[in-house]
Amino acid sequence: MSIPISGFSKKSKQEKIDWLVSHYFDNDPTVYKTLQLYWNSDKELQRLHDDFTENAISNYYLPFSIAPNFLINDSLYALPMVIEESSVVAAASNAAKFWMKRGGFKAEVLGTLKSGQVHFDYYGSRNALQKYFIDSKPGLLASVESLQRNMKKRGGGLKDIVLVDKTEELPGYYQLHCTFETADAMGANFINSCLENIATTFENAAMDSEYFADDDKRPEVVLSILSNYVPDCLVEASVKCRIDELMKTKEDSVKFAGDFVRAVEIASVDKQRAVTHNKGIMNGVDAVVLASGNDFRAVEAGVHAYAARTGRYSSLTSAKTDGEFFHFGIKIPLALGTVGGLTRLHPMVKLALQLLKQPSAEDLMKIAAVAGLAQNFAAIRSLVTTGIQKGHMKMHLMNILNQLNATSAEKAETIRHFQSETASHSAVSAFLEQLRS
Amino acid sequence: MSIPISGFSKKSKQEKIDWLVSHYFDNDPTVYKTLQLYWNSDKELQRLHDDFTENAISNYYLPFSIAPNFLINDSLYALPMVIEESSVVAAASNAAKFWMKRGGFKAEVLGTLKSGQVHFDYYGSRNALQKYFIDSKPGLLASVESLQRNMKKRGGGLKDIVLVDKTEELPGYYQLHCTFETADAMGANFINSCLENIATTFENAAMDSEYFADDDKRPEVVLSILSNYVPDCLVEASVKCRIDELMKTKEDSVKFAGDFVRAVEIASVDKQRAVTHNKGIMNGVDAVVLASGNDFRAVEAGVHAYAARTGRYSSLTSAKTDGEFFHFGIKIPLALGTVGGLTRLHPMVKLALQLLKQPSAEDLMKIAAVAGLAQNFAAIRSLVTTGIQKGHMKMHLMNILNQLNATSAEKAETIRHFQSETASHSAVSAFLEQLRS
Repeated sequence: MSIPISGFSKKSKQEKIDWLVSHYFDNDPTVYKTLQLYWNSDKELQRLHDDFTENAISNYYLPFSIAPNFLINDSLYALPMVIEESSVVAAASNAAKFWMKRGGFKAEVLGTLKSGQVHFDYYGSRNALQKYFIDSKPGLLASVESLQRNMKKRGGGLKDIVLVDKTEELPGYYQLHCTFETADAMGANFINSCLENIATTFENAAMDSEYFADDDKRPEVVLSILSNYVPDCLVEASVKCRIDELMKTKEDSVKFAGDFVRAVEIASVDKQRAVTHNKGIMNGVDAVVLASGNDFRAVEAGVHAYAARTGRYSSLTSAKTDGEFFHFGIKIPLALGTVGGLTRLHPMVKLALQLLKQPSAEDLMKIAAVAGLAQNFAAIRSLVTTGIQKGHMKMHLMNILNQLNATSAEKAETIRHFQSETASHSAVSAFLEQLRS
Repeated sequence: MSIPISGFSKKSKQEKIDWLVSHYFDNDPTVYKTLQLYWNSDKELQRLHDDFTENAISNYYLPFSIAPNFLINDSLYALPMVIEESSVVAAASNAAKFWMKRGGFKAEVLGTLKSGQVHFDYYGSRNALQKYFIDSKPGLLASVESLQRNMKKRGGGLKDIVLVDKTEELPGYYQLHCTFETADAMGANFINSCLENIATTFENAAMDSEYFADDDKRPEVVLSILSNYVPDCLVEASVKCRIDELMKTKEDSVKFAGDFVRAVEIASVDKQRAVTHNKGIMNGVDAVVLASGNDFRAVEAGVHAYAARTGRYSSLTSAKTDGEFFHFGIKIPLALGTVGGLTRLHPMVKLALQLLKQPSAEDLMKIAAVAGLAQNFAAIRSLVTTGIQKGHMKMHLMNILNQLNATSAEKAETIRHFQSETASHSAVSAFLEQLRS
């Protein structure tokens, strides 16, 4: 029976599992077996993973896969991709190979500036606040010196603090808008620690400031935190080739280029399509983000908010034909790190970064953007030619077959059969039943 | 040396690894060791995971953790959470316990309708198209009958098809907007298969239709696909308590409620804050989405686009005080499944769904929304009281200590020391060095 529990986090892993199995699994012995089956046989390594977060009782597997043949700025990569969706790696690999033969991907980082805000309330004179800010700014900058010593050595640090009047949006609401460079770190901990120091300094010094005569009208900090909206931490990637290189015949190439450009135009004007279009891009981006130990929620939030920056949620990629040429490109904000966080801690992340030739944060931004562009190319190519289901179901079919415990011979037979049929779960199940009878 | 490769996907897993190690890892023998260390010792089980996607060479671990004490609609849950960010599970657990003592979470599904579109071009008479659509609609509906036989048994299926004129947004652009119920399946494969049938039927019948006299002016399908924008597949969750129950003293409670509501107001008006605020919500949502074998990219895209639906990207949660009461709630679109996809295939997903009492898709929507609301509550509570870094660094500190190979005794000593100090990587490293010397 489900009952409340106190002090769960303080129990040992075994005690946690015992409690769960007795209260949520009706003492089902297979639960122990499954949890243990997913523990690493190396106890030291398992302990490391158990310490990643609170109340960990086992490991969740995502496939660690490889998409080879990514030619990016004339350098060849095999991308580590961590993703459960069955068709993503195949699609990325196909797109990579296609573009490797047509000059590869070009990628460029347009900026790496991040920001955080001290959000505060203030109901006094704007003039007094402005003066107080100017006076206190050197002290605010100084308040992060000890925190940023190492970051400065790596070329990063707090860049500037500006006072922003947000009272038109919300009465009494102001910000200290702080900008940062964080070198090869994603920088969340660094930025948050800096902001908290700045906030405390700003609020405390206001206590003694002559600018605020009336006690009720001093600035009061509500909260301080980095922003995952990073429109100035931006990367672009693109491909380009002659239109007649797109397909086997000139006629097919022209038709394909036209359909492709039209599909991207549709994703630019229609929100329903744009969301799915961008979701496909993120299949590629997130697979690299996960493999490299970065935080996909931060990336997702920043990217989709950027897609909505004009007030209309729209495509993150753009395509055009220009004389004899076909162009396809992406521009997305990506705050990524290759030091800090899990990057030096998770052995599979270390391996992924080694595979990527120990990239800088900027290198990783380029690689992830390219993965997103490749994914989008593959998706649109399928959509405007064979339809999305054909490629998708090929991989999905294997999952259905495994679920139905198909033998190797049954798998081969079923795959052959469904080359020309729609492979729904029930159709596969029916076919298999027929095979078996 | 990095070189292109043909037929990579057709190689065996061992051949893939051999090729990678020789061309990307300079024959580093530790790479074999690491990849193998992450294989499951049960070969059958490993084969299952290898088949999830193309070119899988090992498993990527994310911690599978438990957040107990979630009281949702008077039923108690322990949530399975899959997430690498160190502070998320602790925050969720704290929020769950807090609200368990104050009546728990209420959650309600407001709708489960999903949609997909056949996007097509047409440059002829609108009147002719409208007539053709009305005539062909019965045939379009009939074209999915065999596909939806099983779905109908489960109460789902294609609900309607409407013709949408999008030519104001893009000349010549129209849609068949199709709505679906997909019962306990997320439904992507079902919807896409239906749409492709509808598209083919629509286009083919147009060939013979008398409505289109001129061959150049027949509808031409560009692409057909489901939408991950699901504003009608919506769930809301909320908590409520007397203001004076929030903190130990009445004075602290009133201050806390005011600061909390203000923090949510800020996230409603300021995009920089809203993105991070919603990112924190998704920490909770995605942890449940991953544990339950659902597609977090689809969820992320749908949720953030919904956050931008008014044209201004804004908070997904809202808070208010109302007389003696404090209210806090969330409303988000979530297209989730508890059948299909990985849900019956991944043993840890099966275990997660068993822990959640074999939820329907609607149950899972409620649980994931509650996880998001809990996460947001914990984040805002930290932000408006101690600051985000204190709780965050507590878990992060353990990761730093593991990275620096600290012994148990060193860990205990360091944790004690950093209870009152900011635990940056360099500060921890310096303290540990001092301990060791």
